[in-house]
Amino acid sequence: MRIGIADTTFARYDMAKDAIDEIKKHALGVKIVRYTVPGVKDLPVACKKLITEQECDIVMAFGMPGKEAIDKTCAHEASTGIIQAQLMTDTHIIEVFVHEDEAKNDVELAEVMERRARAHARNAVTLMLRPEELTRDAGTGRRQGRDDAGPIKL
Amino acid sequence: MRIGIADTTFARYDMAKDAIDEIKKHALGVKIVRYTVPGVKDLPVACKKLITEQECDIVMAFGMPGKEAIDKTCAHEASTGIIQAQLMTDTHIIEVFVHEDEAKNDVELAEVMERRARAHARNAVTLMLRPEELTRDAGTGRRQGRDDAGPIKL
Amino acid sequence: MRIGIADTTFARYDMAKDAIDEIKKHALGVKIVRYTVPGVKDLPVACKKLITEQECDIVMAFGMPGKEAIDKTCAHEASTGIIQAQLMTDTHIIEVFVHEDEAKNDVELAEVMERRARAHARNAVTLMLRPEELTRDAGTGRRQGRDDAGPIKL
Amino acid sequence: MRIGIADTTFARYDMAKDAIDEIKKHALGVKIVRYTVPGVKDLPVACKKLITEQECDIVMAFGMPGKEAIDKTCAHEASTGIIQAQLMTDTHIIEVFVHEDEAKNDVELAEVMERRARAHARNAVTLMLRPEELTRDAGTGRRQGRDDAGPIKL
Amino acid sequence: MRIGIADTTFARYDMAKDAIDEIKKHALGVKIVRYTVPGVKDLPVACKKLITEQECDIVMAFGMPGKEAIDKTCAHEASTGIIQAQLMTDTHIIEVFVHEDEAKNDVELAEVMERRARAHARNAVTLMLRPEELTRDAGTGRRQGRDDAGPIKL
Repeated sequence: MRIGIADTTFARYDMAKDAIDEIKKHALGVKIVRYTVPGVKDLPVACKKLITEQECDIVMAFGMPGKEAIDKTCAHEASTGIIQAQLMTDTHIIEVFVHEDEAKNDVELAEVMERRARAHARNAVTLMLRPEELTRDAGTGRRQGRDDAGPIKL
Repeated sequence: MRIGIADTTFARYDMAKDAIDEIKKHALGVKIVRYTVPGVKDLPVACKKLITEQECDIVMAFGMPGKEAIDKTCAHEASTGIIQAQLMTDTHIIEVFVHEDEAKNDVELAEVMERRARAHARNAVTLMLRPEELTRDAGTGRRQGRDDAGPIKL
Repeated sequence: MRIGIADTTFARYDMAKDAIDEIKKHALGVKIVRYTVPGVKDLPVACKKLITEQECDIVMAFGMPGKEAIDKTCAHEASTGIIQAQLMTDTHIIEVFVHEDEAKNDVELAEVMERRARAHARNAVTLMLRPEELTRDAGTGRRQGRDDAGPIKL
Repeated sequence: MRIGIADTTFARYDMAKDAIDEIKKHALGVKIVRYTVPGVKDLPVACKKLITEQECDIVMAFGMPGKEAIDKTCAHEASTGIIQAQLMTDTHIIEVFVHEDEAKNDVELAEVMERRARAHARNAVTLMLRPEELTRDAGTGRRQGRDDAGPIKL
Repeated sequence: MRIGIADTTFARYDMAKDAIDEIKKHALGVKIVRYTVPGVKDLPVACKKLITEQECDIVMAFGMPGKEAIDKTCAHEASTGIIQAQLMTDTHIIEVFVHEDEAKNDVELAEVMERRARAHARNAVTLMLRPEELTRDAGTGRRQGRDDAGPIKL
């Protein structure tokens, strides 16, 4: 099995490193292929190439969109392309974006980034190896990078 | 006949369970294939895989977008991808999204979610088995999860 | 020749009925294939299926988006998909949407819906049977559902 | 060589007529194929059909989006589709849209429309016959319909 | 190896010239193919043609969107198309857009444009010749046209 890891030089924290560490803990013997591009708008084709040229079974796409309106637009364009790349290949690409304005300061931002990267690395491994397991958590308010919201209590 | 059910661990209520219950009441002998992913942006490819790999004749996609602006953007991206997946496969995917801010509180939210899930499960069964029946209700202001708006009275 | 008619149970007025009546007046012997779906986001694939599975030469897509922001987003997603379906099939799909907030009250809304449905039914027939005729009206400010704006007077 | 001209009955001025006049001045012997549709959202497939069915080497798409928010959304959807049609055919479609609110009054609006139609007709001819010539003007602030902005002076 | 350079006559500064100068410094013997179009919405198909017809291994797309709301929309449409062109060809297109309102005055604007063009030219060369090198800078807050933001310091 092969997991593709696409990330950017634009991001201010190396989420891919945390994700790779987490993958190694949960999926022994899985081959990891890493591909770094300048920014989030370069991610869709990078992810597609990891699937079509590097034969990855699943891909993770890491990005840190900035705080400005233009950054939000870039993130939206990247996300649209990432969904399109999945539809063209019938392969999951787990998007792991942390917006720079999600946290109050740099330390909290790095914390969110590490937690989200690790949580989604576990999701990617599960989706690749034991997809039926996620149904146990269906509708239970899971979050990545923050505490779970939890299910609605009736 | 096979119905695909795609849903998320992000949602705070298990709409798929209600939909499956409703499908079983209205479509005896139909095979249900369930597929759970982390969030709504993972739904388009999950739905497409249910069609291309699991040979589903129709798919339902359940999601609960959050209240923030970023959540609205995610929902829009997911919806765009779900429409694209349908066009690539000539197969219906009934999108069943309930936005977290559609209701005043958690209890009302769960109620909307159950009603919408069940109403669209009936729509999915009708579209799959007796599509011509929906024309009887064309232009009559049907709603799912809330009371019908009804037709304009002249 | 075959005209596809796709519409929804969500709309509060039956535009398709008016359009069918108008088509029968202007295009003798044309076969009409009707397909009703729950909402506007189900229209793109319904239209595509009318083209690829029912062999329609042209399709009309009727929808009544609601007044809320979420309804505007749904209409935008549906329109994007309808354009995509046309490009995938090289076939016209005449979108006939009337937004619920285009009129002051229900009676005016129904009036706009009937006029727009009939005017676009005539457009669809012309596009299918005598496309060169529309060039006579190029740049003359035609409207559907309201009075024509007319050409700029110099 | 064949140039496709797609335009609408919605526009309040006949830009295609000006463009055809300009093309005839600059490209002797070029065949012009005209195709008129109701509104800008019908343009993407009309342009694609001019390429795939009428074998046009380049297409011009004329539209006059109205002043309201809904008109801006329609223009955006049309533009997205026009770009998609180009990518599906590897053929240029020069979009010539003039928004109704670009000018203070109808007379100025018609003037902008004529100038933009003629300037883009020259662009289309150059792109089709001598594409390398445009590089002479690269980065020089050319505008169509208004005076050139000119290059940044250092 | 071949690098495609697509740019516009609309931009008020010739970024492509700077990029070509930079490419020649860092990639001896690389063939450069330049293609100039009127505006940013013409860039997606120009880039695609550089890949499919001119056999470029990577493409750079230079644009200077204006300050108005309509210009932002055009830039968004162009970016969406550029991402789509990449997915259709499994080839990188490095988008180098500088918005006219990114700088306080023309002199600063030209400075940003030159710096961004040169920095992305180096990125393009690295992506084409030694893609694994970018991983050394993953998550370090690199910027083009401005000073680097740098990594988050913990």
